[in-house]
Amino acid sequence: MSTAQVIYDFSAEPGNNELTVREGETVTVLNQNVGGGWIEAQNARGESGLVPEDYLQVSVCLCSLRITHHNNVCDGAAVTHLFCCNSLQTHKMFVNAVVFVMLYLFVFFLYNVLVCACEGDDDDGEWDEEWDDARSTGGYGETTGEEEGEAMGDVGPVWLYPQSPLDCVVADPKKGSKMYGLKSYIEYQVTPNTTNRPVNHRYKHFDWLYERLLEKFGSAIPIPSLPDKQVTGRFEEEFIKMRMERLQGWLCRMCRHPVVSNSDVFQLFLTYRDEKEWKTGKRRAEKDECVGPMVFSTIDPEAPELDIIEVEQKCELFSRFTKEMDDGVKDLLNVGNIHWKRCTGPLRKEYQKIGKAFQNLSSVFNTSGYTGEATLTDALTAAGKTYEEISQIVAEQPRKDLHFLMETNNEYKGLLGCFPDTIGVHKAAIEKVREGDKMVAAGKITTQDKVTMAKRTSIMCYSLQAEMNHFHSNRIYDYNRVMQLYLEEQIRFYETIAEKLKQTLGQFTTL
Amino acid sequence: MSTAQVIYDFSAEPGNNELTVREGETVTVLNQNVGGGWIEAQNARGESGLVPEDYLQVSVCLCSLRITHHNNVCDGAAVTHLFCCNSLQTHKMFVNAVVFVMLYLFVFFLYNVLVCACEGDDDDGEWDEEWDDARSTGGYGETTGEEEGEAMGDVGPVWLYPQSPLDCVVADPKKGSKMYGLKSYIEYQVTPNTTNRPVNHRYKHFDWLYERLLEKFGSAIPIPSLPDKQVTGRFEEEFIKMRMERLQGWLCRMCRHPVVSNSDVFQLFLTYRDEKEWKTGKRRAEKDECVGPMVFSTIDPEAPELDIIEVEQKCELFSRFTKEMDDGVKDLLNVGNIHWKRCTGPLRKEYQKIGKAFQNLSSVFNTSGYTGEATLTDALTAAGKTYEEISQIVAEQPRKDLHFLMETNNEYKGLLGCFPDTIGVHKAAIEKVREGDKMVAAGKITTQDKVTMAKRTSIMCYSLQAEMNHFHSNRIYDYNRVMQLYLEEQIRFYETIAEKLKQTLGQFTTL
Repeated sequence: MSTAQVIYDFSAEPGNNELTVREGETVTVLNQNVGGGWIEAQNARGESGLVPEDYLQVSVCLCSLRITHHNNVCDGAAVTHLFCCNSLQTHKMFVNAVVFVMLYLFVFFLYNVLVCACEGDDDDGEWDEEWDDARSTGGYGETTGEEEGEAMGDVGPVWLYPQSPLDCVVADPKKGSKMYGLKSYIEYQVTPNTTNRPVNHRYKHFDWLYERLLEKFGSAIPIPSLPDKQVTGRFEEEFIKMRMERLQGWLCRMCRHPVVSNSDVFQLFLTYRDEKEWKTGKRRAEKDECVGPMVFSTIDPEAPELDIIEVEQKCELFSRFTKEMDDGVKDLLNVGNIHWKRCTGPLRKEYQKIGKAFQNLSSVFNTSGYTGEATLTDALTAAGKTYEEISQIVAEQPRKDLHFLMETNNEYKGLLGCFPDTIGVHKAAIEKVREGDKMVAAGKITTQDKVTMAKRTSIMCYSLQAEMNHFHSNRIYDYNRVMQLYLEEQIRFYETIAEKLKQTLGQFTTL
Repeated sequence: MSTAQVIYDFSAEPGNNELTVREGETVTVLNQNVGGGWIEAQNARGESGLVPEDYLQVSVCLCSLRITHHNNVCDGAAVTHLFCCNSLQTHKMFVNAVVFVMLYLFVFFLYNVLVCACEGDDDDGEWDEEWDDARSTGGYGETTGEEEGEAMGDVGPVWLYPQSPLDCVVADPKKGSKMYGLKSYIEYQVTPNTTNRPVNHRYKHFDWLYERLLEKFGSAIPIPSLPDKQVTGRFEEEFIKMRMERLQGWLCRMCRHPVVSNSDVFQLFLTYRDEKEWKTGKRRAEKDECVGPMVFSTIDPEAPELDIIEVEQKCELFSRFTKEMDDGVKDLLNVGNIHWKRCTGPLRKEYQKIGKAFQNLSSVFNTSGYTGEATLTDALTAAGKTYEEISQIVAEQPRKDLHFLMETNNEYKGLLGCFPDTIGVHKAAIEKVREGDKMVAAGKITTQDKVTMAKRTSIMCYSLQAEMNHFHSNRIYDYNRVMQLYLEEQIRFYETIAEKLKQTLGQFTTL
């Protein structure tokens, strides 16, 4: 039996027959052939379970087995290729810019997902109506809808929204197992409103989808990370519930995005009919070449080309906004966290102590031997119990209100964290356009190339504007909704306590 | 000009032209002849004011001037005399016991303040009715008044309560000055409900009254201390208000006590007509010889003598009760203090931070440039301001509810602190009675003395029972009242917040 050195910390996912190991620890390898990238190992305390093989340095060489699914991704290779054939430094901005410069070499896949409404061009009445329909049924439109149709002129470019918005429900987590029961996993039922037919997915399928979406749309659309692999939860059930809730939130956000939700890979994830269709679809998606900045080639804003100065200004505006909102969100999360801890910690204990102090006094009074004591001692005991109840209510309250406020802000934190990269792609493109003349003079690109570059940058800018408008309308809806939920629960909280205190008050008497 | 060494810390009372000095400090004596036991001094920082002369060691000998008003009290001398003529050690219990033993040498002043109802002796219908009347108008009777008259049998001995309870209002604090404006003081207006004619009193008059009451009734009735000489309050007004409130509380409690309120000294304090009457009355009160354990000689329980075992059991019961209540009260005060600090400190800050976080997010949203943003940003700003208001409400709440709960419990803490001494007098008496046979055998006392001792101890026990019953009925009223006030304000607090949140909630919209 061989041993292995742990090279990274790994925290076991509850209920998955995994083993938590710490960097530097030595474990005994029980089974190296469990497959799926796992090794069965035992630690010094005799606990055993599965550890990802990448986290272990087994005495016997395992190199040949170390193949992560990342290596199968064509996009990674594609990007590398683009980068290599230009022989530039690995500076990130440069890479992005170069990737962009190469764009015009590819054929455009025009499926017209972007509609520019800012030109006030009314001759295509069809999509205009569709947009209005979408807005009125989507639930994520503006809150101050003035004159329909024309209102679009206010916000600028927007994505073309589907007539009926896609939605789905993640529910019914079930434990499954493989490798003869050695490795267990949780399978969630995902039911889209389009087919109303459930499909099953494990966390790793979500992860696969995330990787595909990031690869394909990441340059144009911020794709938020999946919920952490390790969600804290003391009990397995709590953990599963929390993860499911977050997967639901993530999938919903993706459903809401007209470009993402309309993509083949996303549709495959939601509507595959059988294992065969799923496997074929997976392979096709992994070979998709229209990924990364390529996605801009599929966008036709049907609008006049933007001036480079204007592009830059808009880019700067979004950059500042997302940065500031990121700060604001983090600030709120921070305060929320402190408040959560105070409610479940010191405040809970304090109300409990107040309750105990009343009850204690009641017990003492009870020993007075004085007649006519009972009414007061009963009332004081009731008051004590009420404050103990309040202690419980206070401790449980954050789960009822702060929870959603925190979840929403956490989601936005993730989303906002994607913007710097997206905006970086744009900034690099602008930089390249600015250097266009020099590059032409140096013979690196042709004048025609330069013109195409400017046109592409303009498209990117329209795309960013559409994305920001999508972001804004979602944000307005989300924050209105979460504040409503928060305040509703806060009101219920204060009213419940007032009601309990009223009942107690009735027991005291000075007649 | 001479200097003086500060020998004790002294904190200046705000607004009284006093000077705060610290032990070891050297001050310059500006005026040694201001009188009233004060010296005008200046510290190293050039600040000047009055310092009690006892707190200073002036380079020039001041011994002859150091006369405290205590030295004028006849009672102190009387006790010393009693102690001296028996040549016993200064052990407190012994002193008390000896004081007691000496009692039978004095003439009884029978003014029948104690009525024993436990014997069910109905032949004196007059006081019986008076008691019933007092109970129904006093407001401090039992809360579960069963059959009138006979109900008294339930609680045992009670003091004879006046038909209409005495009450008074302390109000309208006014600044006065003396010594050509050098020394200022606060004078309070005290108006009793009997004469409805206000009299003016300074804190030092209250202090004088306290000393008289303690001297006279301290062995039989717990006389709670006056509010601290130094009440904390950042501003002079706050300080004066707080002191006035506490003096009111103290005086009210004294008014409620049938024995205390009926005494000459107390009546003098409330109803003197002019300076002359006040001064004459003061002198008379200070010469009162019916003080200390002597007061028991004025009590006639009109009830059969109690067995020593029974006396001891009752004494033990009260001792345990007051000890336990003292613990309970201190516990509540402790929790209350912590909660008060949390409300005015961390909780206030936390709600403020939540409010700021919402407003901050609103400001960021305001820069989005997205149309239809205004409703959300307005609502978020409103929510932020609401939480800032909540922060204020939370911080001010303790003054509205916890304050009275704390004040009442503080009062009770003071009251309970007097019981050990009162009970000590009883225990020492019991001890003496137990040693009665030995003392007779040793020829120290006669058999008649022993019988008188047993009778006196029985009277003391009846007196203690009456006092405990007085304490219990007051306690039941006070705690019912303060809990009502507390809960009423707590309910208002929760309802106010709920109402504010409701108004804010209405501003969010997801239509």
